[in-house]
Amino acid sequence: MRKRATAALETFPNPAPGREYEIEIVQPEFTSVCPKTGHPDFGTIRIVYVPGKTCVELKSLKLWLQQYRNRGIFYESATNEILDVLVAALRPRRMTVSGEFSARGGITTTVRCTHVASKR
Amino acid sequence: MRKRATAALETFPNPAPGREYEIEIVQPEFTSVCPKTGHPDFGTIRIVYVPGKTCVELKSLKLWLQQYRNRGIFYESATNEILDVLVAALRPRRMTVSGEFSARGGITTTVRCTHVASKR
Amino acid sequence: MRKRATAALETFPNPAPGREYEIEIVQPEFTSVCPKTGHPDFGTIRIVYVPGKTCVELKSLKLWLQQYRNRGIFYESATNEILDVLVAALRPRRMTVSGEFSARGGITTTVRCTHVASKR
Amino acid sequence: MRKRATAALETFPNPAPGREYEIEIVQPEFTSVCPKTGHPDFGTIRIVYVPGKTCVELKSLKLWLQQYRNRGIFYESATNEILDVLVAALRPRRMTVSGEFSARGGITTTVRCTHVASKR
Amino acid sequence: MRKRATAALETFPNPAPGREYEIEIVQPEFTSVCPKTGHPDFGTIRIVYVPGKTCVELKSLKLWLQQYRNRGIFYESATNEILDVLVAALRPRRMTVSGEFSARGGITTTVRCTHVASKR
Amino acid sequence: MRKRATAALETFPNPAPGREYEIEIVQPEFTSVCPKTGHPDFGTIRIVYVPGKTCVELKSLKLWLQQYRNRGIFYESATNEILDVLVAALRPRRMTVSGEFSARGGITTTVRCTHVASKR
Amino acid sequence: MRKRATAALETFPNPAPGREYEIEIVQPEFTSVCPKTGHPDFGTIRIVYVPGKTCVELKSLKLWLQQYRNRGIFYESATNEILDVLVAALRPRRMTVSGEFSARGGITTTVRCTHVASKR
Amino acid sequence: MRKRATAALETFPNPAPGREYEIEIVQPEFTSVCPKTGHPDFGTIRIVYVPGKTCVELKSLKLWLQQYRNRGIFYESATNEILDVLVAALRPRRMTVSGEFSARGGITTTVRCTHVASKR
Amino acid sequence: MRKRATAALETFPNPAPGREYEIEIVQPEFTSVCPKTGHPDFGTIRIVYVPGKTCVELKSLKLWLQQYRNRGIFYESATNEILDVLVAALRPRRMTVSGEFSARGGITTTVRCTHVASKR
Amino acid sequence: MRKRATAALETFPNPAPGREYEIEIVQPEFTSVCPKTGHPDFGTIRIVYVPGKTCVELKSLKLWLQQYRNRGIFYESATNEILDVLVAALRPRRMTVSGEFSARGGITTTVRCTHVASKR
Repeated sequence: MRKRATAALETFPNPAPGREYEIEIVQPEFTSVCPKTGHPDFGTIRIVYVPGKTCVELKSLKLWLQQYRNRGIFYESATNEILDVLVAALRPRRMTVSGEFSARGGITTTVRCTHVASKR
Repeated sequence: MRKRATAALETFPNPAPGREYEIEIVQPEFTSVCPKTGHPDFGTIRIVYVPGKTCVELKSLKLWLQQYRNRGIFYESATNEILDVLVAALRPRRMTVSGEFSARGGITTTVRCTHVASKR
Repeated sequence: MRKRATAALETFPNPAPGREYEIEIVQPEFTSVCPKTGHPDFGTIRIVYVPGKTCVELKSLKLWLQQYRNRGIFYESATNEILDVLVAALRPRRMTVSGEFSARGGITTTVRCTHVASKR
Repeated sequence: MRKRATAALETFPNPAPGREYEIEIVQPEFTSVCPKTGHPDFGTIRIVYVPGKTCVELKSLKLWLQQYRNRGIFYESATNEILDVLVAALRPRRMTVSGEFSARGGITTTVRCTHVASKR
Repeated sequence: MRKRATAALETFPNPAPGREYEIEIVQPEFTSVCPKTGHPDFGTIRIVYVPGKTCVELKSLKLWLQQYRNRGIFYESATNEILDVLVAALRPRRMTVSGEFSARGGITTTVRCTHVASKR
Repeated sequence: MRKRATAALETFPNPAPGREYEIEIVQPEFTSVCPKTGHPDFGTIRIVYVPGKTCVELKSLKLWLQQYRNRGIFYESATNEILDVLVAALRPRRMTVSGEFSARGGITTTVRCTHVASKR
Repeated sequence: MRKRATAALETFPNPAPGREYEIEIVQPEFTSVCPKTGHPDFGTIRIVYVPGKTCVELKSLKLWLQQYRNRGIFYESATNEILDVLVAALRPRRMTVSGEFSARGGITTTVRCTHVASKR
Repeated sequence: MRKRATAALETFPNPAPGREYEIEIVQPEFTSVCPKTGHPDFGTIRIVYVPGKTCVELKSLKLWLQQYRNRGIFYESATNEILDVLVAALRPRRMTVSGEFSARGGITTTVRCTHVASKR
Repeated sequence: MRKRATAALETFPNPAPGREYEIEIVQPEFTSVCPKTGHPDFGTIRIVYVPGKTCVELKSLKLWLQQYRNRGIFYESATNEILDVLVAALRPRRMTVSGEFSARGGITTTVRCTHVASKR
Repeated sequence: MRKRATAALETFPNPAPGREYEIEIVQPEFTSVCPKTGHPDFGTIRIVYVPGKTCVELKSLKLWLQQYRNRGIFYESATNEILDVLVAALRPRRMTVSGEFSARGGITTTVRCTHVASKR
């Protein structure tokens, strides 16, 4: 899965690579499937990153996130995996991915993961 | 009570144990009983934690919180006890439990407790 | 159940029986039990009525609604029953009871019932 | 009480007596005392009227409503009485008084009364 | 005053005189002076009208409303006068002017006046 | 499709068949596929009905609506079809189905259909 | 202009021509140019219609509305013209077009026009 | 005044004295009297504290705050005095009292005072 | 101007001079005149300060701010000048003045200035 | 483009050059063209800066931002370019420019760039 997904993500050169600035992308139409019950899950994926040499192209990101539509995956795994794949594809200076999932049994869950590039 | 409650909480292995990330769980349908008046209390329980080796399974958490439904307990005790039981069950790196209780006599009360794992 | 419940409701004489006016009462802390799953349900009960000779005393209403706390009943039945009991106890000129229940499986349900006194 | 209160209300001539128009006055700082418990009640008084020959002067209305501050009176009585006194003082073509009282025991109450001048 | 004000209002031909349609104009920056206390009053003027042969030009309306800035006038008089002047200048099929004035002594006042052209 | 879908919808006897009352059901997690672009669509389905002899069982409704998840269908068709199937299954006295779809190209679309039982 | 615009609007057959139902389309990204000042105007175009034999295709509508981007036109003319063109293209049973334009000089303007098909 | 007031405040032992946690209490129904004009003032009192050995009992706090109802006192004095009395009664580790008073002459005032226990 | 204005501001002794606490005053009814266009400007003035030996009396502040009503001054100058005059009159430990001005040409402007007393 | 744009921006001397204070300017009516699809993009440009010797004149800023109306440019480039041009024209002590762009394909994007003057 990950390999295929990474392949599909397109990037373009950061137009201001010398500046440490922030890009925030919000996709409120994320859906996947609960591996336990088989019922669909719904949520908002929020990505905040400081780009390195490349930025993510929005249309390819939209299509890539659609791959989760019929896939069984838990909230915690999905959010961490999205961060892992985007970090591998973009090599950002810093990136936070949040998954804000809608209520199940009255309970709402949000997962927030951050990656910071190690300084060399 | 606590023993029985801890028993009922189910956990699953943290899918990203190497990353320090945050999970926020909100249950707006918490209810218990005021030990002084015998009337029901209502509130929202908010749990924010950085998982250690395990995460809490949401359905078992929902059921475990339902045990307070007919139990007499003060706001301050309930919030601290929920933190104590969850810390014992999950061994998180850090956890905050808030109890935001609805107005009584016009007065609204919120209790916020935090546990930080001691570093070894 | 209904008999016992009617008994507990207290009324007081309408202070303006000659005027057709409206009283709206909102109880956002209603809870009962789903007879199918055994899990608690939560909702808001909204009562709007034009009193006849009597008005409902608020504290007794609060206590009477608490009787649903551990009772298994569907949304549609609970809302209709609350209207039936209040109409029997108060003989209002007109009364609407709404039950606005919180989401289950992502789905929110509201039930709205009205009784109009027959003119004689 | 009523006599004294009526006396204090000041009016001024309607500047557009030939037009049927509406004046809405909202006082969100109304307070009285519950005659049963002795505790203060709080609410918003909303007055909507079509003036006849006179309009109510706002400062005198504010002072007149302050007379309820330490008086024991139920919601239903207060709202109807305010309507009665204002109708007597202003002779409006139509007037609605609403009392929107804050929650007690989780329950919120609103009382809405209307007077329409009889046509002659 | 009125004469001068009417003069300043500019109109333009209704681009769809054959259709009965509605134009709503909201000016939240209205200010005048209380003739009793000398203090400034603030409010929102809302004009909803069905044009006849002409529409009001917005910039001239803005300037015309600015003439109230340092003029002493009560809420009820201001709202009725604005309606009178606009009706005289535009001959609309129907017009409502509302003055929604900000709180004084905690009390908020709204005045709503309507003119309907007599059918011939 | 319709046959299979109707089959899956479960009903239960209306607990108050003698009263004309309203049930409102909101599912904010509806998703289907655009038949033109192949991209997923998202929206809220709102069902308001006056039941006849039967009410729709909520869990079966949730599952039935999930059948649209991977089906290509336009907004107007989906909303009308949901109304058709529910009317066939429930024989309500009156039913309105609304589909409130999220923005595409900045444009938001809502479709609202009503069925009223013919009186016999 | 109108001819060209009408040409570009695409329609598709109403999937439920036998039912009188409503479609609401909201485009919050409308912009044109003020013919007086040359500055851009911004607003929301809201279209509510009961379709006849055809519905408007959303993408073609989006593109058609973009033709106003660099065109000088007053609020009242734009809203009426959009209604005229859409009525000519779709022959709806009923249609309302609203233009809600953002503040200029502090003043906000909304124009609402309705067309009802003459019954034959 | 202060002596009497302190006497009336009841406390109970902190159920988690070993943990530094926060309790927030909001009373939106505070009223006192302006010593200058004699008119009532209205506001919200917000108390946030880290308890030491005792917590404040909510009902006694409600009653104690009611003592301000007919007392003339300025905003700044009331807020500071409430902090002083509560600190004397509870010996908290840290406490902030805010008084958020409603508009007078269009102007809203908030006073925020903090006490931190000196470390020994 | 400044001299006259300073003279008009009244102060009263800080009732808790030994405590570093905060007072926030919000006046949403500020208006001045644009020196370039001659049109009125509208905004909210927000003052947050830690008092020294004196506090500002609210009524005198209201009157003093009214002096800007017919004065031509730019946003940046007005906000800085209000801070300068208040600092000179009150000698606060710290003060921030914000001017939040309403939209002109669609553009909203906020100016925030802070003064911190030099430590001696 | 940049040269021409810089030329058009007008500045005026900072009225309080000795104080480090903040100016926030919000333009919610920004529009440009997507260089990929040719469709218009819409967004809000937010500029927060600490002025040096000059401030930006608002009307010239409005006109300068209008130059993007028919220009093809990506979000990331536009936001960085606006910062670059404003920094060159104003030499601020610190400036942040944010571009908050409306949803495309359900996805919302915000770009935030900061420039801090190097200390000499």
